[in-house]
Amino acid sequence: MKNQLSLGLDFGTESVRALLVDLRGRERATVVVKYPHGQITEKLPGTGEKLPPDFALQHPQDWIDSSARAVRGALRNARAKASDVIGIGVCFTSCTMLPSLADGTPLCLTKKFAREKYSWPKLWKHHGAKTQTDRINALAAERREKWLDRYGGTIGLEWFFPKILETLENQPAVYEATEVWLEAGDWYVWQLVGSSANELPRSTCQAGYKAMWSRDDGFPSPDFFKALHPRLANVVDEKMPGRFLAPGESAGNLCASLAAKLGLNAGIPVSAAVIDAHAGVPGAGAAEPDTLVMVMGTSSCHMLNALENRPVPGVAGIVQDGILPGMVGYETGQAAVGDAFDWLRRMVGAKDFAGLTSKAQALPPGAEGVLCLDWFNGCRTPLMDGSMTGVFTGMKLHHRPEHLYRALLEASAFGVRWIVELLRERGVPVKRFIATGGLPHHNALLMDIYASVLGGKIVIHPCKHGPALGAAILGAMAAGESATGFSTTAQAIRSMAQPSSIRKQTRTIKPNPKAARAYDSLYQQYRGLAEKFRNISK
Amino acid sequence: MKNQLSLGLDFGTESVRALLVDLRGRERATVVVKYPHGQITEKLPGTGEKLPPDFALQHPQDWIDSSARAVRGALRNARAKASDVIGIGVCFTSCTMLPSLADGTPLCLTKKFAREKYSWPKLWKHHGAKTQTDRINALAAERREKWLDRYGGTIGLEWFFPKILETLENQPAVYEATEVWLEAGDWYVWQLVGSSANELPRSTCQAGYKAMWSRDDGFPSPDFFKALHPRLANVVDEKMPGRFLAPGESAGNLCASLAAKLGLNAGIPVSAAVIDAHAGVPGAGAAEPDTLVMVMGTSSCHMLNALENRPVPGVAGIVQDGILPGMVGYETGQAAVGDAFDWLRRMVGAKDFAGLTSKAQALPPGAEGVLCLDWFNGCRTPLMDGSMTGVFTGMKLHHRPEHLYRALLEASAFGVRWIVELLRERGVPVKRFIATGGLPHHNALLMDIYASVLGGKIVIHPCKHGPALGAAILGAMAAGESATGFSTTAQAIRSMAQPSSIRKQTRTIKPNPKAARAYDSLYQQYRGLAEKFRNISK
Repeated sequence: MKNQLSLGLDFGTESVRALLVDLRGRERATVVVKYPHGQITEKLPGTGEKLPPDFALQHPQDWIDSSARAVRGALRNARAKASDVIGIGVCFTSCTMLPSLADGTPLCLTKKFAREKYSWPKLWKHHGAKTQTDRINALAAERREKWLDRYGGTIGLEWFFPKILETLENQPAVYEATEVWLEAGDWYVWQLVGSSANELPRSTCQAGYKAMWSRDDGFPSPDFFKALHPRLANVVDEKMPGRFLAPGESAGNLCASLAAKLGLNAGIPVSAAVIDAHAGVPGAGAAEPDTLVMVMGTSSCHMLNALENRPVPGVAGIVQDGILPGMVGYETGQAAVGDAFDWLRRMVGAKDFAGLTSKAQALPPGAEGVLCLDWFNGCRTPLMDGSMTGVFTGMKLHHRPEHLYRALLEASAFGVRWIVELLRERGVPVKRFIATGGLPHHNALLMDIYASVLGGKIVIHPCKHGPALGAAILGAMAAGESATGFSTTAQAIRSMAQPSSIRKQTRTIKPNPKAARAYDSLYQQYRGLAEKFRNISK
Repeated sequence: MKNQLSLGLDFGTESVRALLVDLRGRERATVVVKYPHGQITEKLPGTGEKLPPDFALQHPQDWIDSSARAVRGALRNARAKASDVIGIGVCFTSCTMLPSLADGTPLCLTKKFAREKYSWPKLWKHHGAKTQTDRINALAAERREKWLDRYGGTIGLEWFFPKILETLENQPAVYEATEVWLEAGDWYVWQLVGSSANELPRSTCQAGYKAMWSRDDGFPSPDFFKALHPRLANVVDEKMPGRFLAPGESAGNLCASLAAKLGLNAGIPVSAAVIDAHAGVPGAGAAEPDTLVMVMGTSSCHMLNALENRPVPGVAGIVQDGILPGMVGYETGQAAVGDAFDWLRRMVGAKDFAGLTSKAQALPPGAEGVLCLDWFNGCRTPLMDGSMTGVFTGMKLHHRPEHLYRALLEASAFGVRWIVELLRERGVPVKRFIATGGLPHHNALLMDIYASVLGGKIVIHPCKHGPALGAAILGAMAAGESATGFSTTAQAIRSMAQPSSIRKQTRTIKPNPKAARAYDSLYQQYRGLAEKFRNISK
């Protein structure tokens, strides 16, 4: 068998990871390289201008330079030849976006605009567009824009058009000089394939989840944009050229100049970009539809591919071809998971989780009456309301820190069950659960509670860098059946993310029947509490 | 001036305090003596029988023996002669009660019943009468008993008739053999004055607050008792002889046998008994009506004397002559105060309150969004619902232990404001605030918050043992104007609990106007939260 490798590139907030993996899922090398400028939140490079507190920028040259070092390092560590690499996949934080010229030059790297902070790429967590987001939501609600339904009735502060409108309102000259507005992931893929602006490969994932785009209806209408701001009316026609490709579809072949930078051969097929969390779906081995992939860390992103497109209120995004080609991707989320656990640990003055966990484990389901709403960072799905707050109730003088901790873990599980029931009620099947990310590996009690609350077994995927593996799978898909022998997406995922070597390390958590029965009624109490508070705060 | 002393005896849960004080409020001696048997919660004396977990008994001989040692010690320490003592006042925990024979012999000290646990005095905190309390409340509600209104619609688990019914149902022979059912405070005063059973001096305070008695209507009707249990129909006529006296009214004079035990002269006037917390009202110098005396410790009891009797829903007891003769005593309470603060301190792993307090002090009113319901031991006034539980809401990831602590202190203050507004809405004036008990001396931040939330100044009375001082004042009142020169109750209280020596040590806490304005709207939020939860749990 030939030494065929796929390259997955995972662009994070502080660094980029390059992963080389073969077509049987054997990891050959992985190298992480930090961005020289990291997150730019204090001072603008070059001028030293102090940035407002809600700013978070990145440097586009970092993406090229750091990925080049990472790829070269991975090739070296894998003792692989450049010719072994048969496909490239790219996942990126989102919505990280930037203004560029038609030839791909980021506006911030032009002489004229380098000193202007609004010309720089805005990182996903840039929060400068608060008022713009509110106005977009209000106007869309007033006009009953159809696309609003696909996002649970609310679009997010970190999304694509709020960030454009923020620039237009604060620095119109930057808006006027921009020839292409685009996602950073798309920009990077565009650089790799070196196409013209008209052929610019835009990811259906990023456009669908962050820019209100859909395969059927495109972007919001010029009428809507005009009502928002006259100058924005034709933003799509004038400043957003390109074509739409699903992750796993080929965006073109690696061009000579980027090949030279990365130390690869020109001509390698490159997949369209994908959001990093969404790349975790193939990366976790979710080859079948109706499988909820729970990517669990400081916050959680729960994603599902389905064969049919159904409106589900309160789901953060429903996108045809949003995660994998040919399926409808449903994205849901919980805004505070590991973050909330760590907050509680600090709140009760515990050094680590060991003592809390063993005591919480000894408690029965329901934490002896303590009930929690885990909205310490707002409620994402299904309320889509960042103003929601955390709640503990049912507390008596005999309760101890472990009661609060167990109640918090249970609230987190109830939150997922709410999402699952919502999907099922609306005709979106949820048949299997896969957990990935850092938390499932470190918190066995949490996974036991999740399995019993959900009433179904949970597969914990062992891969420590699922998004990079997902990107590599998408790269192999872009390379096509002639190169890989994979005739379907499911085949690629099974071969690369569910090989026997991985299956051996996979744990399956089963529900405890007695606990599951108790949680059926506790879950109803949680829902009752949630109803009380959604009314209070809205 | 003669060396005229009044003796206050304060019978607590573990010990009795004897206080000798002169008519100008100068403390001459105070001695505390523990009860040899303490609280009897594990094993019955004599037999060693293991007691049920909700049992709490006392030994009547302890009351005599320990008080004798305390009085003799106080006389010795004060270098006083027996003839210096001109009056005796007695305050007692309540409802601590017992069955006795007509000659005053406690049933548990008879040969026949010593081995029967139901013949022993039940301490106030004895919780064996749960089902009986529920049935009394249900029956009273069903029959729309008029007296129920005086107790906020619910009578308590620790009260007089639940404890009788518990004995009748569990050990009818004890019930049958009982010739007199009575409060322990009344029993002790009866022993002091040595009267016949028909002249037994029953306290209007204890009868009014714990036995559903009122000056106008007496006890509940035989019809009611009959519906509860046929054998109980004539309990009042058959087994509750005596006459009703307000605290401060003379119950008679010290008899020779008890005088010999206590080392005093026979013939000293003895006041009718009073509940220990209620003795704190005169003890804190509350000479005027319309003064809310906040007795603050692990829980709080807030008491007020008024000139008029108005029904106020949710007030724990409204009793004519309940605290002082000639006035209507209103008793309200909060079930967890210092207890709840200490619970939170343990919950957040703090060694003491110093660090928590200084950080909470630096926060603005409202604890940056955290709001609490302080029902960690149920809600006494005004909901009268022990099933209520503590709540924290408004929590975000940036909140720290001091936010929870400040929110808890504020909730405690809001709870008092609710009580004050309830009284005022129903036409019961509240014009002044006095704080007493342990907490006001130790928690300056709490008192600042209370003053701003209540929008009025709070006088912190310096006396460390207010109930014993209150009892001594009542003893002086029983001695009468000819002995003391006090022509009114207010005069006695002003002279003995507000002398210049005490005034110098009295602190007055004033509201902060800016904080008070902020608390006006925060209080409305608290009430909104309370409304949500009273609906959930009931």
